Amino acid sequence: MEEKEISQAVISRLPRYFRYLGELKADGVERISSQDLSKLMNVTASQIRQDFNNFGGFGQQGYGYNVEFLYDEIGKILGLDQTHNFIIIGAGNLGRALGNYMNFERRGFLFKGMFDRNPELIGMDVRGVTVLHMDELEEFIKKNAIEIAVLTIPKTSAVEVAEKIVSYGIKAIWNFAHVDLEVPEGIQVENVHLSDSLMKLSYNLSRYKKEQE
Amino acid sequence: MEEKEISQAVISRLPRYFRYLGELKADGVERISSQDLSKLMNVTASQIRQDFNNFGGFGQQGYGYNVEFLYDEIGKILGLDQTHNFIIIGAGNLGRALGNYMNFERRGFLFKGMFDRNPELIGMDVRGVTVLHMDELEEFIKKNAIEIAVLTIPKTSAVEVAEKIVSYGIKAIWNFAHVDLEVPEGIQVENVHLSDSLMKLSYNLSRYKKEQE
Repeated sequence: MEEKEISQAVISRLPRYFRYLGELKADGVERISSQDLSKLMNVTASQIRQDFNNFGGFGQQGYGYNVEFLYDEIGKILGLDQTHNFIIIGAGNLGRALGNYMNFERRGFLFKGMFDRNPELIGMDVRGVTVLHMDELEEFIKKNAIEIAVLTIPKTSAVEVAEKIVSYGIKAIWNFAHVDLEVPEGIQVENVHLSDSLMKLSYNLSRYKKEQE
Repeated sequence: MEEKEISQAVISRLPRYFRYLGELKADGVERISSQDLSKLMNVTASQIRQDFNNFGGFGQQGYGYNVEFLYDEIGKILGLDQTHNFIIIGAGNLGRALGNYMNFERRGFLFKGMFDRNPELIGMDVRGVTVLHMDELEEFIKKNAIEIAVLTIPKTSAVEVAEKIVSYGIKAIWNFAHVDLEVPEGIQVENVHLSDSLMKLSYNLSRYKKEQE
């Protein structure tokens, strides 16, 4: 299918559609109208139709969407019909928490390796994966067709490590380091800046308290 | 200062300004023009001026912004000049990783308590905080003036727990459970849906690969 350029705002909403459709499917719902999906997800029906029209529409209005078909199609668009090998760089608390999260596997993200520089962490087992020294990154990435690297290292080393792993063949970085990475054209980066998220919560909390005074 | 209603898009950008200004400050930079800040942050200078104008502008164009003043002002807007007591509900890997993250303290977020239902986790020590049973939530929240709850529990129990803690006095929820919470007016929720973020990365990766074929 020829796809037009889709905005990142639309892309950001796809996983949420996928989640709701997965729940409907699990509940045995076969068809759903954009109106009902709209109420469930608390977005407008016109937003849903506009979003879906980016991908050809997925089904007739009025008659509603076939839940299983829509779920599968959005999954394919998200690349979840393929598997992606990933490694985690940084075997600290957050890295280990992500390594232990089984649900990624269910979506086709396969946890293949884990790396650190700290001798105390090297050799540790995280869900069947042995933490290796970062000197072994190049060989490991090339041998194991690793596409995605999860960066859970301090921001001071993240920029340098990102540059290296891209040169070793990494195509996508899921970045938890609190720094913006500069990567070449064609390398995908998705940031999870936890502190930023907490600050946004703090803003809304403070703002609301001021309004109540 | 009377503030007008600020869009969540602007709010989302404030922590990033705060981060860059903190780095400039640490580097000893005293003043910066919106043009230079624009280059550094890879956003347009007009975006920066528009964003700052929501808060009165912070300084003259041409002459540039006073870095320390701007850093402090944005910190105040984000509520970082106050302290916020928080608890973590869910003492699994992710909850413990967040509990062990010291930088939150530096921003005024004080880690006060941790809760779980799993008898194997209760009594565990996480950076000086003892994991308590969730039956103790009500008393603890009320006695310790807890404002923020971090939810790192499965989505099956998150909705019910959120309802309870709001009734106990929690004002803000940092939600890592993979479900949308419904909370009363005035309760702040900030979601970190890790799977959604990974799926977005997967989309961009798949999309790019298709374009290259």
